[in-house]
Amino acid sequence: MLYGYLGSMKTKPGHRDEVASILTSGADGLRAAGCHLYVVGLAADDDVTIWVSEIWESREAHDASLQLPETRAAIGRAMPMLTGEFTSQETVVAGGLLG
Amino acid sequence: MLYGYLGSMKTKPGHRDEVASILTSGADGLRAAGCHLYVVGLAADDDVTIWVSEIWESREAHDASLQLPETRAAIGRAMPMLTGEFTSQETVVAGGLLG
Repeated sequence: MLYGYLGSMKTKPGHRDEVASILTSGADGLRAAGCHLYVVGLAADDDVTIWVSEIWESREAHDASLQLPETRAAIGRAMPMLTGEFTSQETVVAGGLLG
Repeated sequence: MLYGYLGSMKTKPGHRDEVASILTSGADGLRAAGCHLYVVGLAADDDVTIWVSEIWESREAHDASLQLPETRAAIGRAMPMLTGEFTSQETVVAGGLLG
């Protein structure tokens, strides 16, 4: 079964678009790491929250991707613009319309 | 910009797989209604929560889909197996790897 991950983060005021841009810019490269889906969404009801919805081959592929040099560089660029408030939810993908 | 929707629901004990099956069975038909993505995930940390991650052409397309006969029938079949605890989050899709 595919591994699903739903996460949210809060950005410091005025920095959400820049963080979203960092997150989306590297998305194409994730495919080779076992990523099937990586959607970056801006919360419609505030100006600071970003939601990320991901599907991966496996939890191991997801965890390994966090160690990729490009991922670590992106995290390093985004981190100063985040407040440190995160949520995360792991799922087992049951199916649906996967794009 | 594409419309994103992240929702969760809790099922009565022992009914999660059946509800997930109802939700995934009609997913292919959603494409014609303006749906780009409809992922059904089972929370990894309990036995009752389902997460749904959706991307639609527009909020209007999403809202209209709830009135489709097949959607209404699916909701009718699933509802008795739900506890009534829902969460929802609307987003503006910024981009990413969309399958």
